[in-house]
Amino acid sequence: MRSEELGETLLPKRLALPIFASDPLSSVAYATQEILLVLTVGGTAFLYLTPWIAAAVVALMVVVVLSYRQVVHAYPSGGGSYEVVSRNLGANAGLVVAASLLVDYVMTVAVSVASGVDNIISAFPGIADYRVPMAVGFVALLTAMNLRGVRESGKAFAAPTYVFIGAILLMIATGLVRMVFGDAPVAESAAYGVTASHGKDSLAGLALLMLGLRAFASGCTALTGVEAISNGVPAFRAPKSKNAASTMAVMGLTAIVMFIGVTALALVAKVHYVDDPCQLTGIAGDCAAFTQQTVIAQLASAIFGGSSSLLFYLVQAATALVLILAANTAFNGFPLLASILAEHRYLPRQMHTRGDRLAFSNGIIALAVVAGGLLWLYGADVTSLIHLYILGVFTSFTLSQIGMVRHWNRALRTETDPAVRRAALRARVINAFGAATTALVLVIVLITKFTQGAWLAVVAAVLLWLMMRGIRRHYDAVAAELAVDDPQAESARPAQVHGIVLVSKLHRPTLRALGYAEAFRPDTLEALSVAVEKDATEELTRQWDAFGIGVPLKVLDSPYREITRPVVQYVREYRRSTPRDAVAVFIPEYVVGHWWEHLLHNQSALWLKSRLLFTSGVMVISVPWQLSSAPRADHPARRAPGAVRRGEPEQRRKVPEPERL
Amino acid sequence: MRSEELGETLLPKRLALPIFASDPLSSVAYATQEILLVLTVGGTAFLYLTPWIAAAVVALMVVVVLSYRQVVHAYPSGGGSYEVVSRNLGANAGLVVAASLLVDYVMTVAVSVASGVDNIISAFPGIADYRVPMAVGFVALLTAMNLRGVRESGKAFAAPTYVFIGAILLMIATGLVRMVFGDAPVAESAAYGVTASHGKDSLAGLALLMLGLRAFASGCTALTGVEAISNGVPAFRAPKSKNAASTMAVMGLTAIVMFIGVTALALVAKVHYVDDPCQLTGIAGDCAAFTQQTVIAQLASAIFGGSSSLLFYLVQAATALVLILAANTAFNGFPLLASILAEHRYLPRQMHTRGDRLAFSNGIIALAVVAGGLLWLYGADVTSLIHLYILGVFTSFTLSQIGMVRHWNRALRTETDPAVRRAALRARVINAFGAATTALVLVIVLITKFTQGAWLAVVAAVLLWLMMRGIRRHYDAVAAELAVDDPQAESARPAQVHGIVLVSKLHRPTLRALGYAEAFRPDTLEALSVAVEKDATEELTRQWDAFGIGVPLKVLDSPYREITRPVVQYVREYRRSTPRDAVAVFIPEYVVGHWWEHLLHNQSALWLKSRLLFTSGVMVISVPWQLSSAPRADHPARRAPGAVRRGEPEQRRKVPEPERL
Repeated sequence: MRSEELGETLLPKRLALPIFASDPLSSVAYATQEILLVLTVGGTAFLYLTPWIAAAVVALMVVVVLSYRQVVHAYPSGGGSYEVVSRNLGANAGLVVAASLLVDYVMTVAVSVASGVDNIISAFPGIADYRVPMAVGFVALLTAMNLRGVRESGKAFAAPTYVFIGAILLMIATGLVRMVFGDAPVAESAAYGVTASHGKDSLAGLALLMLGLRAFASGCTALTGVEAISNGVPAFRAPKSKNAASTMAVMGLTAIVMFIGVTALALVAKVHYVDDPCQLTGIAGDCAAFTQQTVIAQLASAIFGGSSSLLFYLVQAATALVLILAANTAFNGFPLLASILAEHRYLPRQMHTRGDRLAFSNGIIALAVVAGGLLWLYGADVTSLIHLYILGVFTSFTLSQIGMVRHWNRALRTETDPAVRRAALRARVINAFGAATTALVLVIVLITKFTQGAWLAVVAAVLLWLMMRGIRRHYDAVAAELAVDDPQAESARPAQVHGIVLVSKLHRPTLRALGYAEAFRPDTLEALSVAVEKDATEELTRQWDAFGIGVPLKVLDSPYREITRPVVQYVREYRRSTPRDAVAVFIPEYVVGHWWEHLLHNQSALWLKSRLLFTSGVMVISVPWQLSSAPRADHPARRAPGAVRRGEPEQRRKVPEPERL
Repeated sequence: MRSEELGETLLPKRLALPIFASDPLSSVAYATQEILLVLTVGGTAFLYLTPWIAAAVVALMVVVVLSYRQVVHAYPSGGGSYEVVSRNLGANAGLVVAASLLVDYVMTVAVSVASGVDNIISAFPGIADYRVPMAVGFVALLTAMNLRGVRESGKAFAAPTYVFIGAILLMIATGLVRMVFGDAPVAESAAYGVTASHGKDSLAGLALLMLGLRAFASGCTALTGVEAISNGVPAFRAPKSKNAASTMAVMGLTAIVMFIGVTALALVAKVHYVDDPCQLTGIAGDCAAFTQQTVIAQLASAIFGGSSSLLFYLVQAATALVLILAANTAFNGFPLLASILAEHRYLPRQMHTRGDRLAFSNGIIALAVVAGGLLWLYGADVTSLIHLYILGVFTSFTLSQIGMVRHWNRALRTETDPAVRRAALRARVINAFGAATTALVLVIVLITKFTQGAWLAVVAAVLLWLMMRGIRRHYDAVAAELAVDDPQAESARPAQVHGIVLVSKLHRPTLRALGYAEAFRPDTLEALSVAVEKDATEELTRQWDAFGIGVPLKVLDSPYREITRPVVQYVREYRRSTPRDAVAVFIPEYVVGHWWEHLLHNQSALWLKSRLLFTSGVMVISVPWQLSSAPRADHPARRAPGAVRRGEPEQRRKVPEPERL
């Protein structure tokens, strides 16, 4: 089964890290910013909470990474959260995760692209007016790339992530060195005053707690994408689980270092980042039109010396690129998850068949349309979009950790080897703690984000969940309807077959259809035409005699110049008079090569065919005539998106020989 | 041929007038306004030209109505300008007319709806911000009505036109009576001063002539739709031509009276209507946001006593309604013309087949999309849209009058009866004069409007012309390719037929396909399955033996989990090994009842079918299985748009009995 090819295409760790980590690492570009944005609601008074909130986020990340390392070991097949939850908590809980993940893929595209555009605008403020067109343009570009089947495994896809990591670490290091030498960087926005939002200047008690929780919930965006590696274990080289787990550790460590570094520098450099620019004082011009630089851009500018420095542009370019790549990961993950759901009959079957390119196209286009629509609707505003984001992330975190606890419970019931039991007991503790923690965060996110937009994500996930259950119910009902009770009785064949060849003109396709119909030797055979235009019908009957065609020609009247109805009625009456027989309708069809030729041919044949098929006991036979424009060879198959991260082999096959007619 | 029904559905003159005249009469609502708008470019200095320009428009209308009365007599078949020009000046000239008319139908919708909305806004200024959504909404409403097949023959469609005529005539009469009694109406805008556009306050010589010509070209919008009756002669009661000609005369007279009346009152009431509201002085508030009332609204308000008067609202409602009806006429005319063009193979065949509802749906939707797009693009601004409008009208006027001159030349060559010759000679003089006049107007319109937007209409018409010629060329090439040279040699039938039944599961549709295939008794028969999932394939082979199915089952490997490619390759190799035989592939298909079920079933069957048909010597046999959701009866036919004005009989037929399975 071509398995010898498998080894070649598997990912070494140095390639797996950038491919799976562009999504979680790129969150660094907006997590700190979102924390600051929430805390500045009360002027600069509450910024003292930042380190505590950052510490909580880091602790949470440690818990989640440790928890998912257990998933990687327990489920090396790479099914990810959906598989873990379906197997351990049942199909309905699995569907909740699936719906959350589908929503999250959409949000990954929207948030990453919006943040990427934000960072480009921070480097080139002149193009701030084109925020939405740029964002939609990037979505369109990613869609086109994925529809064309561009592979993501290459070094071209790995390089930006390393450049991003390098650039951010260099920035952090430079900032720290400057601090040590007493030349601490100062952000441009440090000069701006920050006024509190109305009535938010003195919070205490519950209100202060809520503010802290909101800031924490926003900071949790740093965790998005952390689970990606657990879906991609089969793509790693052996020992798969071990390599995946260590890659995950490296990724977690890198993310934590970058997040702490950026947050610390933002505090040192006194970056002021607010929800509403009109909270800022001391800015030039109209506050409503003022465009804030992203936190990353403010830091790069402060540390590397403003917008004249090459390194500033490098940081911005790497950040924007890695964010666009993070969006691309959703274009790989979404159709893959859809394919698994389709295999389980929760989505239309055609999303499953892997080899056919079309299977993934629908998923890619659906993702692009919804994400593009959200970007347009929310004006590509990162903060608004993030409110919709992390609910799904933490739903799937929580459910999969609960599922893992069940998994270990079950394993412990049968396991007797003390070493394995010890490992399982330890893993259960980790996952139970992970479940409790992420469940708590989920509640926090729900409370603090629901009214700010997260309700929309909830509604979308619920609708998806209902739709997937409905589709499954439909497939089950059809399967029951089609199940065979009595093979002997139900395979009774018709007594006789009556052949009818539909004729409009006496041209080559008609002659071929007549020849094929005769070759079949049906019990009776006649040709059928509809008299739509008098002249044409007379010409047809004249030629019929002149050509000496042996098959009798019957012409149906059509007072209203229709074709479909007289034919369908004729066939139905035929059926009614001979209910034990079958009717075979031969339809000559053109096969064309260009898409626009479809608009010019075969429309009435298609319509007639679909009407005929509603009649039981009728089969419809397409006898094709290949026009000279029809292609002679198949298209070579393209690789489906996500193949690299699924660890699927390259499809090497020769293009079939062009066929000679 | 159901001809006894014909008499009942033909139109008496009192119904024909409103149905055909809503388009030309409704032009009164904007023609005067457009003249005033051009002339006020130089402040109020050039308004003295108005009576002369109006007189020229009236004279032109007399000439055009007289010319088209000749068309009505000469071509009672109702082909209209396209038929007249095709027959007399050749196919290419006919296509020019057709392209112009198609563009014009679009513009009729856009301009009429925009003007209708304008008149609604004049009555309710508070909704001025919703101009574009309202316009697009009306287009959507008309589209839905026409897709549903609403008949336009009823009194509900005739009443608004009569109410409009009555309301406008009442307004004119009241205005005149008030003038006679020394209480001449004064428009609200009479109080505003008008400043000249930059540098346009003192025009002389050529510039003044150009201004006059521009105003005249704008006033010619009063003539749009005048030819409608010549397309609808078959819908009149006998004597058809005579009734159509006299209806045309009544329509012309009414239009002239209304146009003169409105223009005269506008001058008396000193209506000031300008292109750019900032030319107005003395208005309250921001001039850029100022919404001018339409001329009709200003007159109705001045004559009937402001916006507290019921009659004011009656005039506005009737005007808006008749304009929407005028737009509806294009929804009748466009698919009809498209159908004739399709019959002549200049447009896709499927636009021709009259009885099938689908034939007209494409035309209706195309018209709606383009007209809606233009309304959106031009902000539903009447003046901008009108620049694109009348070029097509006068192209078809001119060419059809030239065609009529040729027609009489030919008739005179053979005619000997002196009375008939005299009539033909007189008609030729009328048409020659009409041709010369409309050609002159065409040149004037081209010169004055080309740079203001008419170029777009020219480009659209040229593209349409090229497309229609290309389609015809394609159909001709295909017809040549399909023509039979040697009936004996080409009707050779294949030596043998190999039957292949495609099997995915062993359910009822598969058993039916196997039974039908056996009934056909092909020379060989086998069942074919693709091993996509190992478990499913094992289950299939197990059941195959258990059920005792006599047909041998062949299972194809599919390392990449595809279905289409292995099957197509297998069939091709089969064909290559037995080139003199034919292969018949039986595919079990589900027939479903709901549109969404199509999304869930048959996708891979459809794709496979389309790939198989590319291989010569292969026929594809759909063996349908009707799911319980599949409908048991046909839908009753709806009447196609434009049937009334074509004089086609009502299609009375009984709905076929639901079929018992």
